[in-house]
Amino acid sequence: MKIFSDIVLDKKSQQHLYMQLFNKIRQMIIDGKIKANYKLPAIRPLASKLGVNTSTIVNTYALLEKEGFVYKKIGSGTFVSAILTHKNEDDILQKYPLDEDIKLMDRGQMQIKKNMISFASATPTSDLFPVEDFKILLNEVLDRDKGAAFGYQESQGYYPLRDALVNYLKTYEIETNPENIQIISGAQQGIDVIAKAFIDHGDTVIVESPTYTGAIGTFRSRGAKIITIPILTDGIDVDRLEECIKNYKPKLVYIMPNFQNPTGYSYSLEKKMKVMSLAEKYNTLIVEDDYLSDLSFCSSDNTALKSLDSSNSIIYIKSFSKIFMPGLRLGFLIIPPKIHQKILEAKHTSDISTSGLNQRVFDLYLRNGMWKKHIKYMEDIYRERFEVMKSCLEKYFSTLQLNYSIPQGGLHFWFELPDGYDATKLYSQAAKNNILILPGNIFFPLAKGNRFFRLSIAAVKSKDIEIGIKKLAEVIEKMIGKDSKKEQKADAYTPLL
Amino acid sequence: MKIFSDIVLDKKSQQHLYMQLFNKIRQMIIDGKIKANYKLPAIRPLASKLGVNTSTIVNTYALLEKEGFVYKKIGSGTFVSAILTHKNEDDILQKYPLDEDIKLMDRGQMQIKKNMISFASATPTSDLFPVEDFKILLNEVLDRDKGAAFGYQESQGYYPLRDALVNYLKTYEIETNPENIQIISGAQQGIDVIAKAFIDHGDTVIVESPTYTGAIGTFRSRGAKIITIPILTDGIDVDRLEECIKNYKPKLVYIMPNFQNPTGYSYSLEKKMKVMSLAEKYNTLIVEDDYLSDLSFCSSDNTALKSLDSSNSIIYIKSFSKIFMPGLRLGFLIIPPKIHQKILEAKHTSDISTSGLNQRVFDLYLRNGMWKKHIKYMEDIYRERFEVMKSCLEKYFSTLQLNYSIPQGGLHFWFELPDGYDATKLYSQAAKNNILILPGNIFFPLAKGNRFFRLSIAAVKSKDIEIGIKKLAEVIEKMIGKDSKKEQKADAYTPLL
Repeated sequence: MKIFSDIVLDKKSQQHLYMQLFNKIRQMIIDGKIKANYKLPAIRPLASKLGVNTSTIVNTYALLEKEGFVYKKIGSGTFVSAILTHKNEDDILQKYPLDEDIKLMDRGQMQIKKNMISFASATPTSDLFPVEDFKILLNEVLDRDKGAAFGYQESQGYYPLRDALVNYLKTYEIETNPENIQIISGAQQGIDVIAKAFIDHGDTVIVESPTYTGAIGTFRSRGAKIITIPILTDGIDVDRLEECIKNYKPKLVYIMPNFQNPTGYSYSLEKKMKVMSLAEKYNTLIVEDDYLSDLSFCSSDNTALKSLDSSNSIIYIKSFSKIFMPGLRLGFLIIPPKIHQKILEAKHTSDISTSGLNQRVFDLYLRNGMWKKHIKYMEDIYRERFEVMKSCLEKYFSTLQLNYSIPQGGLHFWFELPDGYDATKLYSQAAKNNILILPGNIFFPLAKGNRFFRLSIAAVKSKDIEIGIKKLAEVIEKMIGKDSKKEQKADAYTPLL
Repeated sequence: MKIFSDIVLDKKSQQHLYMQLFNKIRQMIIDGKIKANYKLPAIRPLASKLGVNTSTIVNTYALLEKEGFVYKKIGSGTFVSAILTHKNEDDILQKYPLDEDIKLMDRGQMQIKKNMISFASATPTSDLFPVEDFKILLNEVLDRDKGAAFGYQESQGYYPLRDALVNYLKTYEIETNPENIQIISGAQQGIDVIAKAFIDHGDTVIVESPTYTGAIGTFRSRGAKIITIPILTDGIDVDRLEECIKNYKPKLVYIMPNFQNPTGYSYSLEKKMKVMSLAEKYNTLIVEDDYLSDLSFCSSDNTALKSLDSSNSIIYIKSFSKIFMPGLRLGFLIIPPKIHQKILEAKHTSDISTSGLNQRVFDLYLRNGMWKKHIKYMEDIYRERFEVMKSCLEKYFSTLQLNYSIPQGGLHFWFELPDGYDATKLYSQAAKNNILILPGNIFFPLAKGNRFFRLSIAAVKSKDIEIGIKKLAEVIEKMIGKDSKKEQKADAYTPLL
């Protein structure tokens, strides 16, 4: 209780007392000062300690619950949720560190040491980067542009690059023009800039559940209210989406229609069309995060939502981190003209502009056809890994008590343990056997999902996939086998809440 | 009135009605939907249109006034202020464009065309960048690190660079260690990351007035309440600073103790000590933005506040944009250990990490002594310009009805026109004569300062300084001469409110 009785509220402040208290408790949770499942003080004593009405405490706890920071147990009180806010998916590794090797490996700073096989990293290993080609173009740009390559770049981005991107986008059947392109320093900044432009404290954002942790962190940082909609193997639950758009009037809907992170699921064309019609009907801004659509292996359709966007309701985010070089910190947005100015201002206050040198080199890379060649190269490598992964899952996982569905492409596979098992425990067990997996709880904005985990093929070579999956299957069998009470087979289409 | 009667408030929302209305009107002002000096509707009719109590409107208007979006005229109503929010100082040029040349010149994308002389840009011209040296090191890093140079970099920054910076900081008498350094993608991102970590909606920030526009934009974007303290020629008004820290309990105090932007003024050592003692006494976090302290020409003291920081109250921001190459997008923070985790999380949600390649090259640049050589080179060039500027001001400006004070170093000179004159008009007149100046109103968070303008020597060669200042003096004389009612001589130490 001491930590609570130390709280000081400012009664003269413009900010309401319940909001002040909400911010303070929220911060204590984020800072880890009060841990998961910690019981919050009862309402009456806390109100009297702080010298406020009980209604203030009631309002604060209600808001904390609404935002997913606490949960209530009828008859026993209010408890802190097991959230991991502001965390990138890879940070989970720092929460459950085995040894220094894992951290170094995770950050891509070092070749994999010893016999570790990592299904955790979503980033290609650096041996796949086209360093030599890039070096030639770097020198070409420096000889051509000299100091101009190091001046402030236009905030919207280097014009020739925007022009080259318009051309490149035609292969995705996206028609746009350089005025609608905004260069960004990676997809994370894209999400951040969009949030800055549209989300004020208390605004609502709708996201898929589970979803990309970096987006959750950014939306929370703007003080947004996050509403989650389950994603099914054929895409978001569109009926609930419509209901929530109607009820909550969100400022943004953030989705990944192709090879979603972390599930790997893709929206059916029918669902894509439905989402578009909802966007038009309710005049809702949709953010489409496309980080992988180039890697379609089994599907005949990897249509970008943006290519269906006749009403200019879609902000399209494209990252090159997963198929090119993450360290470049380069990506772009396609933005509806009416919101252009807001996005530009948000970009300006974020970092003024993206490195002009990297933009100029990437421009050449696109124009001279090296990009096309590189995409083909990455696609071939990933396709092989994808096929090996599929057959290994068939061979070693199909008899396990796991719920999963094979995606149609991309880099991620998503699994659900039977009720009562915890994927962070599986993480620890697997790591002891030199296999890295990623527990799924961090992908749920509202503190559920302990049973899920993600395997990615971005950083694991084909020959290691079989070794790794075989070993992991043994670990899972041993873990689940230990506790014989679990027998139910989960429904293949269970919604992920 | 139509634009106001269209406003829809959500009576079921968690957010109070006056705050909803505040956000909507604030946005209309920022979006330019209602312009400077537009009269807001009277209280009673608006309340009845929106179906709310008159007190809601009163509260909204009061908050708008407090935040500088509107001003009141006794007996005649409430009017929109002439603010330019979210604007970088250079954007002013887009508000008053003469022709395409100005824009290109401003962005540093092109050599100065025709006979334009620019005292507006605060960025060195690209002919001063050490491109050849940098190119050699770029190739060295690529040969040494290969793909690793393009992987995700650790969010805190490349360790060897942080280590090299610790060494470099010893020349500023700042003792720190690599754990306290956070690499950022330029100073603007530094401010943004700090704001993200510490400013929630409704929190208070104290800034100097006038101050850097990019900081104003970022703090506003977080929904901060901005309190301004006048800066005098020997630094901030420390008595008012203490009073405001006591009254407003700010989350941050953002200052530039050496060669402040836009005034060029530096804090006396006495004031620096006083600010430090206030930080300790009130346990207040001070953000020191040091973008120019290397350029001390007349002063024997350019002590960084951070070097006096025994209580770990200072976040130090260092940018290299003004003395190196802005397009690199590289800078760093020194952060007190207790807030390290918060800053790291904010960096992570901003852009995950800063370009690893640029960090590695800059690391070599620091280590092999090229940096020291370059600083000396820039210092010599700027010192010469500074001396020329000083003697030109003596020669041409000293008889004008202008209030100004020569700074002890840096790149900026700050001027005040007599009461009743408008620097944006001077801007237009000067531009017609091929001289670019920067009107000062954008540097005032609370919509004052129309009489001020800034001249910078970052982008103008010595030989052009005399031509430019002579011409500008003629323009000013003509302008002031036209209106004979202005005769008062302003006090040399008038506070800048």
